[in-house]
Amino acid sequence: MSTQAVLSKSSRPIATSLKGKDSRLEVMSAVPLVLSTPVGLLAEQTITDKKYLFVRNIQDLAEGMTLEPLPLEGWETELVGLIKPFRVVIRGEELLEMDQAEYEMILQCSGNGRSQYRGIPGTPWDQGGVGNVRFAGVPLKAILDKYNVTVDPQVKYVTAEGHDLPMGLEKPDFEHSLPVAPVLERSILALKLNGEPLPGIHGGPVRLVTPGLFGTMQVKWLRRLRFETAESPNFYHATEYRVPLSLLKAGEKFRFTMENSRPTWDIRLMSYILEPESGAKLKAGVVTVSGVAYNDGSVRLESVLVSFDRGQNWQPAKFEIPDSPYAWYRWTTQANLKPGVHEIWSRAIDALGRTQPLEGSIFWNPNGYEWTGVFKVEVTVN
Amino acid sequence: MSTQAVLSKSSRPIATSLKGKDSRLEVMSAVPLVLSTPVGLLAEQTITDKKYLFVRNIQDLAEGMTLEPLPLEGWETELVGLIKPFRVVIRGEELLEMDQAEYEMILQCSGNGRSQYRGIPGTPWDQGGVGNVRFAGVPLKAILDKYNVTVDPQVKYVTAEGHDLPMGLEKPDFEHSLPVAPVLERSILALKLNGEPLPGIHGGPVRLVTPGLFGTMQVKWLRRLRFETAESPNFYHATEYRVPLSLLKAGEKFRFTMENSRPTWDIRLMSYILEPESGAKLKAGVVTVSGVAYNDGSVRLESVLVSFDRGQNWQPAKFEIPDSPYAWYRWTTQANLKPGVHEIWSRAIDALGRTQPLEGSIFWNPNGYEWTGVFKVEVTVN
Repeated sequence: MSTQAVLSKSSRPIATSLKGKDSRLEVMSAVPLVLSTPVGLLAEQTITDKKYLFVRNIQDLAEGMTLEPLPLEGWETELVGLIKPFRVVIRGEELLEMDQAEYEMILQCSGNGRSQYRGIPGTPWDQGGVGNVRFAGVPLKAILDKYNVTVDPQVKYVTAEGHDLPMGLEKPDFEHSLPVAPVLERSILALKLNGEPLPGIHGGPVRLVTPGLFGTMQVKWLRRLRFETAESPNFYHATEYRVPLSLLKAGEKFRFTMENSRPTWDIRLMSYILEPESGAKLKAGVVTVSGVAYNDGSVRLESVLVSFDRGQNWQPAKFEIPDSPYAWYRWTTQANLKPGVHEIWSRAIDALGRTQPLEGSIFWNPNGYEWTGVFKVEVTVN
Repeated sequence: MSTQAVLSKSSRPIATSLKGKDSRLEVMSAVPLVLSTPVGLLAEQTITDKKYLFVRNIQDLAEGMTLEPLPLEGWETELVGLIKPFRVVIRGEELLEMDQAEYEMILQCSGNGRSQYRGIPGTPWDQGGVGNVRFAGVPLKAILDKYNVTVDPQVKYVTAEGHDLPMGLEKPDFEHSLPVAPVLERSILALKLNGEPLPGIHGGPVRLVTPGLFGTMQVKWLRRLRFETAESPNFYHATEYRVPLSLLKAGEKFRFTMENSRPTWDIRLMSYILEPESGAKLKAGVVTVSGVAYNDGSVRLESVLVSFDRGQNWQPAKFEIPDSPYAWYRWTTQANLKPGVHEIWSRAIDALGRTQPLEGSIFWNPNGYEWTGVFKVEVTVN
């Protein structure tokens, strides 16, 4: 792929360039490609269909703008850095022959919910930047075993690069560093999404997938993993996709450094009301409220509480614990609503005692990442 | 003070050695001195009286075993380490002449609530290791200004030593390192407790007090502050008074290192039901439930929820926001209870969305620090 192709890409009309695009996907902006999943679809599907799964690419792979798979033949992923041997190249065909592991898991943009913060530029995500999918592929651990790779004990991070290129010569390339522990414990080189070969638009043929981390850390079109002692100073890792370690006031200026901020690694605990949608008009009587909730998968959710009186009382929703700790919990509850305008609030609590603050803006940050506030919808009952 | 005096101290009868001791204090063990505050007294007093305030000393100052103040005259505290000038000695009399700052604040042993964990040796604290007091003294910041002390930007920790000595020649001395930021921001050299000269037993005449931190970090009988780039490798700082960074199973063996654990610095969010006490017998009808709640003071408490049906429903308690962010919130609520055995649970939530897990044992650690579980009492209603 030439740089020319990348440069020209930014001016193409997106609607025609994404083969197999479904008209129900909401195109949120033209460059770079962003597709949002409508709430109604999230509510319908326990496993989010690849056709409706959100897309958020910082940069694209020109031939990857498709819901079809890309060929695995000839695709190479290399391991380099503080490892022995110093370089290992894994061919796509070899991956196919190895045992596969599958995770049902949240895929979520760290900017999901950004529209709840005030005055922040960027993709105006509400809750369309999340899905619950199944990724399958080869555990990195198994690859290290097969190729007799030893990782130096000094390695603290694994930096992942994709085959995608910047959207212009003046732009920095995109990559992310992940803490080595979860990578060695559970990362896979994913080849499948929901049981089918991974579509190009979702990072196929090979994507680094580590359940429990935000989508930006699930690096697409995987080309190289670097085993290193420090985090990458790359623009998108050292400046973007970070949140301050201290609390800011809304609108406050902040100059990100590695020391005063951290990457958007672990998914924040969250719950959403998917039915009824905000603005819905309902009939008086028993109303069913349902939604999803999840955290980073490190511990189970303890409860989902729902309030029909702006936090005066909270009743527990019913939910089943999913088989995968990284998947979302679907929850439901009922209440008898009288005519009038009602707010319905949801709040998950996990076994570590982490919950959603009433005012999620307390975590205001210049890029609007990691929204985790109590979820609120307003409905009219007649 | 000679080492001999310290060695002999551990065999003295505590009840007679603590002058001014009130019979309502509960002596929990003889050596070292531990005094617990009865629940009834916590419930009665917004500001915990010095006579009833818990005492937990790793080691004692022989002449300090008194509720009376010790003389400030001749008491010297020195500042050393990466500062200019390299050593500053502050005499007690000079502190008296400077402007004083006062904090209403939680004083809490990091082992408070230890009895809720199972099978952990140590002081069997229930909720008697906490109080709400007023400490007043001279801000360290003002002392640095007055003596033209500049702190090297490389300083990351301030290590505090007291004049107390180990309870035996073979034992390590006691000291703690605190992060430099809160120390420079709000630490005081405390001279007063609840408006009166600081009693010897509570660390007088000079104690390092940093609101928001656990009691063990409020170093008594302050002798020296060391401004350093690293945490102290001292036994009580590097091995004791730490919690693992990962979750352990109850009873799991753990070898503490600086890398796999952190000090018990910031007070954990907590709520207590003080009335009725567990085991109380009540009359059927409207029952008033009241207690206290607090966190590390970094953000305000958002709500205190109380459940009378083992977590099925949660109602908000009423509380007033105290003037000091470091003080406890007193809360109260009511419910109509029918005859039978009832559990009453309380749970605080703060503005960061931190709350108490239903099962506090998820944070099980070998020394039983930082209990933060949902608080539960059982009462019988007739």
